[in-house]
Amino acid sequence: MLRFECDYTQGAAPEIMRRLAETNLEQTPGYGEDHYCAAARAKILSRLGRPDAAVHFLVGGTQANLTVIAAALRSYQGVIAASTGHISVHETGAIEACGHKVLPIPSDDGKIAAAQIDALVDAHWADVTHEHQVQPAMVYLSQPTENGTLYTLAELEAIHEACRKWRLLLYVDGARLGYGLAAPGNDVTLPDLARLTDAFYIGGTKVGALFGEAVVLLDKELQRDFRYHIKQRGGMFAKGRLLGLQFDELFSNGLYERLGRHAVELAMELRRAFEAKGISLRYDSPTNQQFPILTQAQYEALAERYAFSLWEDLGERKAVRFCTSWATDPAAVAALVEDIQGLGNT
Amino acid sequence: MLRFECDYTQGAAPEIMRRLAETNLEQTPGYGEDHYCAAARAKILSRLGRPDAAVHFLVGGTQANLTVIAAALRSYQGVIAASTGHISVHETGAIEACGHKVLPIPSDDGKIAAAQIDALVDAHWADVTHEHQVQPAMVYLSQPTENGTLYTLAELEAIHEACRKWRLLLYVDGARLGYGLAAPGNDVTLPDLARLTDAFYIGGTKVGALFGEAVVLLDKELQRDFRYHIKQRGGMFAKGRLLGLQFDELFSNGLYERLGRHAVELAMELRRAFEAKGISLRYDSPTNQQFPILTQAQYEALAERYAFSLWEDLGERKAVRFCTSWATDPAAVAALVEDIQGLGNT
Amino acid sequence: MLRFECDYTQGAAPEIMRRLAETNLEQTPGYGEDHYCAAARAKILSRLGRPDAAVHFLVGGTQANLTVIAAALRSYQGVIAASTGHISVHETGAIEACGHKVLPIPSDDGKIAAAQIDALVDAHWADVTHEHQVQPAMVYLSQPTENGTLYTLAELEAIHEACRKWRLLLYVDGARLGYGLAAPGNDVTLPDLARLTDAFYIGGTKVGALFGEAVVLLDKELQRDFRYHIKQRGGMFAKGRLLGLQFDELFSNGLYERLGRHAVELAMELRRAFEAKGISLRYDSPTNQQFPILTQAQYEALAERYAFSLWEDLGERKAVRFCTSWATDPAAVAALVEDIQGLGNT
Amino acid sequence: MLRFECDYTQGAAPEIMRRLAETNLEQTPGYGEDHYCAAARAKILSRLGRPDAAVHFLVGGTQANLTVIAAALRSYQGVIAASTGHISVHETGAIEACGHKVLPIPSDDGKIAAAQIDALVDAHWADVTHEHQVQPAMVYLSQPTENGTLYTLAELEAIHEACRKWRLLLYVDGARLGYGLAAPGNDVTLPDLARLTDAFYIGGTKVGALFGEAVVLLDKELQRDFRYHIKQRGGMFAKGRLLGLQFDELFSNGLYERLGRHAVELAMELRRAFEAKGISLRYDSPTNQQFPILTQAQYEALAERYAFSLWEDLGERKAVRFCTSWATDPAAVAALVEDIQGLGNT
Repeated sequence: MLRFECDYTQGAAPEIMRRLAETNLEQTPGYGEDHYCAAARAKILSRLGRPDAAVHFLVGGTQANLTVIAAALRSYQGVIAASTGHISVHETGAIEACGHKVLPIPSDDGKIAAAQIDALVDAHWADVTHEHQVQPAMVYLSQPTENGTLYTLAELEAIHEACRKWRLLLYVDGARLGYGLAAPGNDVTLPDLARLTDAFYIGGTKVGALFGEAVVLLDKELQRDFRYHIKQRGGMFAKGRLLGLQFDELFSNGLYERLGRHAVELAMELRRAFEAKGISLRYDSPTNQQFPILTQAQYEALAERYAFSLWEDLGERKAVRFCTSWATDPAAVAALVEDIQGLGNT
Repeated sequence: MLRFECDYTQGAAPEIMRRLAETNLEQTPGYGEDHYCAAARAKILSRLGRPDAAVHFLVGGTQANLTVIAAALRSYQGVIAASTGHISVHETGAIEACGHKVLPIPSDDGKIAAAQIDALVDAHWADVTHEHQVQPAMVYLSQPTENGTLYTLAELEAIHEACRKWRLLLYVDGARLGYGLAAPGNDVTLPDLARLTDAFYIGGTKVGALFGEAVVLLDKELQRDFRYHIKQRGGMFAKGRLLGLQFDELFSNGLYERLGRHAVELAMELRRAFEAKGISLRYDSPTNQQFPILTQAQYEALAERYAFSLWEDLGERKAVRFCTSWATDPAAVAALVEDIQGLGNT
Repeated sequence: MLRFECDYTQGAAPEIMRRLAETNLEQTPGYGEDHYCAAARAKILSRLGRPDAAVHFLVGGTQANLTVIAAALRSYQGVIAASTGHISVHETGAIEACGHKVLPIPSDDGKIAAAQIDALVDAHWADVTHEHQVQPAMVYLSQPTENGTLYTLAELEAIHEACRKWRLLLYVDGARLGYGLAAPGNDVTLPDLARLTDAFYIGGTKVGALFGEAVVLLDKELQRDFRYHIKQRGGMFAKGRLLGLQFDELFSNGLYERLGRHAVELAMELRRAFEAKGISLRYDSPTNQQFPILTQAQYEALAERYAFSLWEDLGERKAVRFCTSWATDPAAVAALVEDIQGLGNT
Repeated sequence: MLRFECDYTQGAAPEIMRRLAETNLEQTPGYGEDHYCAAARAKILSRLGRPDAAVHFLVGGTQANLTVIAAALRSYQGVIAASTGHISVHETGAIEACGHKVLPIPSDDGKIAAAQIDALVDAHWADVTHEHQVQPAMVYLSQPTENGTLYTLAELEAIHEACRKWRLLLYVDGARLGYGLAAPGNDVTLPDLARLTDAFYIGGTKVGALFGEAVVLLDKELQRDFRYHIKQRGGMFAKGRLLGLQFDELFSNGLYERLGRHAVELAMELRRAFEAKGISLRYDSPTNQQFPILTQAQYEALAERYAFSLWEDLGERKAVRFCTSWATDPAAVAALVEDIQGLGNT
């Protein structure tokens, strides 16, 4: 069985495993106050061109999201997100467990628009009883989205403007950021994110690290006392150097970019194979997740040799998800492409 | 200015004011452990035909909702509600502040259907990653709804069945229950609510009391330690007897029913006046809230003498809300009816 | 049975009952936005000499405490309080339910000292791992304390200085403030509280109102969006005018002061009677609560005709609590004094 | 500089690093549903003799504590702990952030006694206003404690009895459990913990793993829906197999025991060296943490070559902490022993 059902089926990039092994018996201070974390921070800040930013390393994405959002909001405030956003539907109410409502904006492809944000916030303040409603105070985006789509720079700038207008913080979940940066047509860079957001995270778990996410805080107020938040929410990693060391390696010698490109190139091969076969795609994704809409017969044929995820039942057909990753074997993709070519049309 | 903008512009029924005055200097124990509370509880339980129920008196509706819901749910569980429900939109995230997500079901008229509940819960358990989602564990309804509409007994029984099937608790917000019980065509009685729900509250604040809601708990597990919940959430009223005394009076000599009928009869006069004028109503409400759709000219004409609420902007027209209450002066309604009759058609 | 077990056994001052009756059928807007609330606010601000303060009316003390404290603290911050403080032991963890730790300072008589606060906060910041601890950010005092004792102006000024030094907010729970203001020897005035604290509340429930507390917010940041906090925590009272009207009356014609003096003068009669009998007092209380230490025989003798509270078991003797209030009948005190005089010495 | 300041300065046991490398590019399902987790669970359950227990793998100790405690308690309930307990003082209020009060029992050496628990809970229920207090519902112990001390089997059985009597859940934090199991004189085995507690965790982070704790749930109700709790609190580790694989290895070939013995034997060498020198120890610790009380001169002499923690300022002397671990180099201990022998007496 070749597994394409998600992008975290495997361990870490060999470069990372090697450094973990080499440094295993070194003694360092705990809790992220070691020289590996310092080095990784310096490289990230340099890449962003923002020496005033703060970087914290956390173990996973849900933890990053809940820690940042809970740190940012006052108790009566909520965070705007696409109805499909990870915090809206796939974190078991982690944001609500911190006391905050997720304010959903309907979305089909995972993206929301500046105009939708503007309308939601305008309606809040226009209501004379706005104090009886959750006050919108932050916007959460995913780049790429959970559906593989990407915000363009123009879209992100418009959202940035809407946030400035209404004094909302802008936070971007970059669990798969490496796959967005490598996508054909992408025009949003790391420095753009640092310029346009108040916080974002650079995902490691799905992009070459054994585990770990690098949270970047641009907003000064959000930076204050952030380590208290991390500890309180259970995210203070004892051997913090393991995180620092991984990001130090990811941001050396172009590794993060290289891993991203690997996955995306293979995903584009899959995309072309589906399209060549006349199989339409649920979303227009230039990243490592592809969502073909299969007939039942196609579904069953592929399910014999490949693991993939059922995404949406569309009556007679099914939208499914195939993920590539930094670790995907090109031979596995070649085999899959061949099997796609051999599928019947019904 | 005659006020119809809500149903809590005035104090309490004269019978209640009289008893508050008469008993003012009596000495009783605090925190709801006095003989007035005991008497009120006994009358309510008798009316419900459920001696095994528990009755607690709280000051207001948001407090009743958050206390009951927080007491009922485990931390990862959420409560299903209409997208228009009071807990969904008008309590500043009070449920989320207790850690729980409100799971909205789209609704236009304030009601949700058993089939919608069934579909939502089925989808939860059918998803292989349901542990990554908030677990639905309770259904919240309002009777009447925030839009003045009413569940029929058949609808409520169907929802009850859906709840039993999926092991959901059923909770009914009865802020305006007295106006539902008095509505023409209503077939849901207090004993029905006691039979079909796990908890509900009988609203006093909007139906004749100075303030106060009587929370009825049918479910045994929910009854356990409920006074701890009340105290922890700030709802333990020191001079509890004031609440008991009011409900004792409301449930004596048919007062609660009489107050409900007063408001509904006057609301029906308004409804007939709007309909006679060819003014359509946004919702089909048999209760004390009426939602005529006015032209701008009609709106401005009525706004000169009457206070009412803007409900929804419908382009060229506006849906507005007129409320009657237990205290509404028939003369004020007569004046308003006359002014409605005198409105232009555009 | 004559009841001295607490100071909320009775209703409201007759002046208040009269005004509630007189205004009962007036129509006003809800949620504290009426002219009675405005008038009461103006009177309180004028008494305090602080036109820049904000005043909000809440129904009860626990609700006032949890709303103010939750509004003031960031999620990883805690509030310092006497180990005997109401929030430490008698609110079922209401502060913790909002996510915040109460940081207790050991106290015997209900008071804490500036030096204790200083030591606690100093230890926090001196610890290199302070991020692993709750950050102290507020000080909670009660004036009078739960044990009837009072802070002097000098003590309060020293605490104020400690708070300024460490950037802590200072909050005073004034559930029985009227009895403190009236106490012999008291030198802390309402303007002093407005000058030295960031927030405090003037208790109505125990001092002549039917119910209600006036929360005074001096700190600008704490004032921001406070009505959202009130609504979210369940404390937004629909018929807010009832609260405004009561405080308007309490702060008219010296009523609040007069009610306070009434209770304290009667309490001093009790105190003198106990002392004359050689019965020592557990705390040196100049306010309406007195804590005599009784032998078993004395306890049983008084329990025949009077209700009072067991406070602390001291081996062979028992400390008990007798409360007077604004409503205490002087004849009841006279009877009790006579019975104290008739007690045996063992 | 040789580091003895904590027991997590280094990576993982070589056996673990080897298996992580060997399995790095295998594809497995995520979130702990892989065969490595299954194998590790089976080994742990077999060691415990409790096939009915549930085992979940989490990344760190604070996360384990907050997830278990929040899952166990109803909202108004609290957890009893030593005043020195990790959850009381070193988790930035993580338990309070979940809404629960930690109910402290004063402790000098890190342990609490069954009689103290009994007294605290008895006092709760004896108070007529117990509903105004946090209800004790769980006991938290650390084995070994934060001070290196150990509960005996008799002490643990007495606490177990107190918990049964009062219907409290018993939870043991085993962050350093491996060092307790290996301690001279220890008579508490893993099957004893499985028999006497409702939940405990076997610490990996400090005892040979790169990271990870194995949470064991004995109580059936606590087992229910536990994965929802993990996800909601941010603790669902994407590549769960990394945790399973580490515990599979730790519980193979006696590795966990061997690592524990290594640290404890070296700690006993340090202890003997301090005692031989006449340096007294702050706590009587048979485990990997030793707390000598040093003069200023001794402190400064050792600080030149060794990193260790300041624990408590005792006036002229200082209690400090030296930790050994599974990774401590015997040569480093030999050097330290020699330097201890060479210390002056003042």
